Amino acid sequence: MTDTSQTGAEALVRTLIAGGVDTCFANPGTSEMHFVAALDRIPGIRCVLGLQENTVTGMADGYFRIARRPAATLLHCGPGYANGIANVHNARRAGSGMLNIVGDHAIPHVKHDSPLTADVDALVGSTSEWHAFGTSPARIGSDAARGLEAARKAYGQIAALVLPADVSWSEGGVDAKPAIAQGPAAAEPRAVQVVADALRSGKKALILLGTPAVVPELHPLLAGIAQVTGATLMGSPSISSSPRGKGRLVVPQVPYAVDRALEELAPFEVLVLVNCPPPVGFFLYPGRPSLVHRPDADVLTLTRHDQDAAQALQALADELGAQAVAVPEAKEAPAVPDLSGPIKPAGFAAVVARHLPADAIVVNEALTLGGGFDAVMPGAERCDWLTVTGGAIGGGIPLATGAAIGAQAQGRGDRRVVTLQADGSAAYTIQALWTQAREKLPVTTLLLNNRSYAILLGEYAKVGAKPGQTAMDMMSLDRPAIDWSSVAKGFGVEAQSVATLEELHDALKKALALDGPMLIDVQFAG
Amino acid sequence: MTDTSQTGAEALVRTLIAGGVDTCFANPGTSEMHFVAALDRIPGIRCVLGLQENTVTGMADGYFRIARRPAATLLHCGPGYANGIANVHNARRAGSGMLNIVGDHAIPHVKHDSPLTADVDALVGSTSEWHAFGTSPARIGSDAARGLEAARKAYGQIAALVLPADVSWSEGGVDAKPAIAQGPAAAEPRAVQVVADALRSGKKALILLGTPAVVPELHPLLAGIAQVTGATLMGSPSISSSPRGKGRLVVPQVPYAVDRALEELAPFEVLVLVNCPPPVGFFLYPGRPSLVHRPDADVLTLTRHDQDAAQALQALADELGAQAVAVPEAKEAPAVPDLSGPIKPAGFAAVVARHLPADAIVVNEALTLGGGFDAVMPGAERCDWLTVTGGAIGGGIPLATGAAIGAQAQGRGDRRVVTLQADGSAAYTIQALWTQAREKLPVTTLLLNNRSYAILLGEYAKVGAKPGQTAMDMMSLDRPAIDWSSVAKGFGVEAQSVATLEELHDALKKALALDGPMLIDVQFAG
Repeated sequence: MTDTSQTGAEALVRTLIAGGVDTCFANPGTSEMHFVAALDRIPGIRCVLGLQENTVTGMADGYFRIARRPAATLLHCGPGYANGIANVHNARRAGSGMLNIVGDHAIPHVKHDSPLTADVDALVGSTSEWHAFGTSPARIGSDAARGLEAARKAYGQIAALVLPADVSWSEGGVDAKPAIAQGPAAAEPRAVQVVADALRSGKKALILLGTPAVVPELHPLLAGIAQVTGATLMGSPSISSSPRGKGRLVVPQVPYAVDRALEELAPFEVLVLVNCPPPVGFFLYPGRPSLVHRPDADVLTLTRHDQDAAQALQALADELGAQAVAVPEAKEAPAVPDLSGPIKPAGFAAVVARHLPADAIVVNEALTLGGGFDAVMPGAERCDWLTVTGGAIGGGIPLATGAAIGAQAQGRGDRRVVTLQADGSAAYTIQALWTQAREKLPVTTLLLNNRSYAILLGEYAKVGAKPGQTAMDMMSLDRPAIDWSSVAKGFGVEAQSVATLEELHDALKKALALDGPMLIDVQFAG
Repeated sequence: MTDTSQTGAEALVRTLIAGGVDTCFANPGTSEMHFVAALDRIPGIRCVLGLQENTVTGMADGYFRIARRPAATLLHCGPGYANGIANVHNARRAGSGMLNIVGDHAIPHVKHDSPLTADVDALVGSTSEWHAFGTSPARIGSDAARGLEAARKAYGQIAALVLPADVSWSEGGVDAKPAIAQGPAAAEPRAVQVVADALRSGKKALILLGTPAVVPELHPLLAGIAQVTGATLMGSPSISSSPRGKGRLVVPQVPYAVDRALEELAPFEVLVLVNCPPPVGFFLYPGRPSLVHRPDADVLTLTRHDQDAAQALQALADELGAQAVAVPEAKEAPAVPDLSGPIKPAGFAAVVARHLPADAIVVNEALTLGGGFDAVMPGAERCDWLTVTGGAIGGGIPLATGAAIGAQAQGRGDRRVVTLQADGSAAYTIQALWTQAREKLPVTTLLLNNRSYAILLGEYAKVGAKPGQTAMDMMSLDRPAIDWSSVAKGFGVEAQSVATLEELHDALKKALALDGPMLIDVQFAG
């Protein structure tokens, strides 16, 4: 471990490999060339290029959600990192782990304030759970080891390591071996007791579940707890990956629309939080509360986000005398609708759900048009359903790309990824399609095209004014209409536009038979 | 001014209009709907939608560089602002002024840490020269007034105002009238004296010029000072807009390549800085210095970045007994090369320079392929030449878009914008093409296509290693090749690919005759 003839960059690469990192999503620049050379020289890490940094960090998020271990990213100086912050934010809200390696100027260069110099410390510090500044080749290995340990802590965290160019190029590098990941901490016995008492109190109770509490292995136990207590199960909006489809427990999510959420949560006098925060509206509206549960509800925390959901739920079940039970049988999939009509949400969802192959990964960044799926997913093949947890637009296509790579890293390169991607949000990180083409990933992008920021039109209506031309121009995408097929082909991805359910059906069949990516521009009826 | 029946959003819009803001580049979200409604209701501000935030801030930079007054931007919460930081960074390095209005959660909502909540204060604070958090409708007008004053201070600054949704929607808004912009401060007489003495000392002197020192009005005076003192004039890499072409003084810029810069600056014993920092290399390399001037040179500051260049140069000329003189006659434009060959930098530059119409605006984000222009620009029609000053990739297309809108705001919508856009950097903010199409802007994008990050290949060579497959995969864009014409058409911009100088010639003629935008995919010889 003390081969000091190696450079700092080489020590860093060896430390990453020793820590089990097999993938680095990258958008390098001049200050990272020695690190790129080290990645080139020392085999063991797959490097995946993104054309813009928000595609890079979004891919790392998608990778984590499927592979359940952190990838590294490679980004270029403060402004390059800034380009990737939005999807770091989404990943942090998803509880995903990653180690962002942010190349920076050589240390003696910083004081000269050259053009690309920025306050990288403020940028990484305000957006990461752990960050460090690499100060020497002798310490870069142990810095990276601590970063990886942070990225794997509990369920996952955002870690960032600033890598100055001279630390990268100088000799005297010492690599390190990251400690084995520590699992999440056990729940407090007192919390289990308090929750059990509340669930036995006869009050109407809701159990709100975060990501580690909805893994498929826990579904029989959750079903048993619900059966014994009569409590309702619901998913937190913070869930980064929901198991859905046949054989899985149906766990509806807290609705996005505040009024609907208030209505659905109104009956519950007791709220039990399992690895998730209290249910808060995405935004506050005039005359509405921030929290969408009853103001007089007892809000009890079974487990915080970094505690062991499986252990806590088992302890709770033991306390309640609940057993794992068979997950209720799925309803039949709804009949396929008349395929001749124009494309509307319900028919769209039915067609897509019937086509989903088993073990697919669905990425959903289509809030306004993706609403038809709740009715049809219980009858679909089983899948993992990923959402943009942090609300920062532009997560979908990078998430899907990284998820496909994460599946490959798990030896499950056969898993199909299907992206439900609204058009407005597609425009933020459309460059990620190119990485899908380069890596020949089995990703099918359904571009849900309504030629507007439909969600904003809905929000604007709540303001109580009819939009004039100025407002409409800030919420419509129809002047000019974007030809998504042309954009996708430009980035090397096969593409086709469809305007009827029958065309969608045929295009989906074709897309899902391809080894590589395809985009279907789904033109919704206006 | 105390019409308190207005909302905070309305007070803000009225304050912007009172402060002379006529353009708002926008990418709004839910928390900004009341501000959008106010922009809709109160006429006076042109709202221009960008499909991603880095296009928005880059447009504001381009607008400022041409209109010489700040536009506002409208961005959505911390992650939306983060998406725009890279071009805020470039604008700050350019000395451009803008007021970024960052919509955020309603104040009582922040403590609930809803999914889109981020540390917006750290993000705007670390990237702006001035920032404030709007706390009430009664104060939002005066906050905005101070922000505009900051954005116009001296030559221009980055200002940011966080606008919580409830400040926007609540009544009791009070608008304000921003103070008239204060011009830059006068230079210190002592500095003028010291510089004059040094220029008379007989030592070999270089006068390094920042943006306000190279405006065309100062060229006769600069020529006179050079004539009297024998000093050499050079442009700082920080120049945001260089006047070039016929009738303008030829002011070469400090070369980007450090070894060339060291060589060219080696003769100079005296360095006079006029509104610019000392010449520093973009990056530090092993065995090279950070500063590219002679280590023993006398470095003298005539004016800091916020002092009055015109006044200082006049005082210096008076002290030296120098007069404004006629700018030396331009050389003839080089003969047009044989048009039948493949496209290489020299021939490309010659063809483009001959086609440039008078008063064009050229935006250059093509470091490796744009090198042929120094030889031909002195004979070209006069133009303004804009570069990506901060080194953050992805400035070009948004800058060009904003520059065209800035020209319209100045009543010079006839000015043609020509973008020299390298392919690697084009991929970062390609969405800005759509805004060119929507606003029907006379922008001709020359996409300089070499299917690689050529600058990185050059930098990698300095590392001393031959790139293997892993390294090549992080620096090449040829698998798959991006079809830029297809991407541009997808975003509504006419496009054509050319592979010979003759095709380039024909396509340029066509593009420059269009009222709206066109992209020419210029395939350089490999």
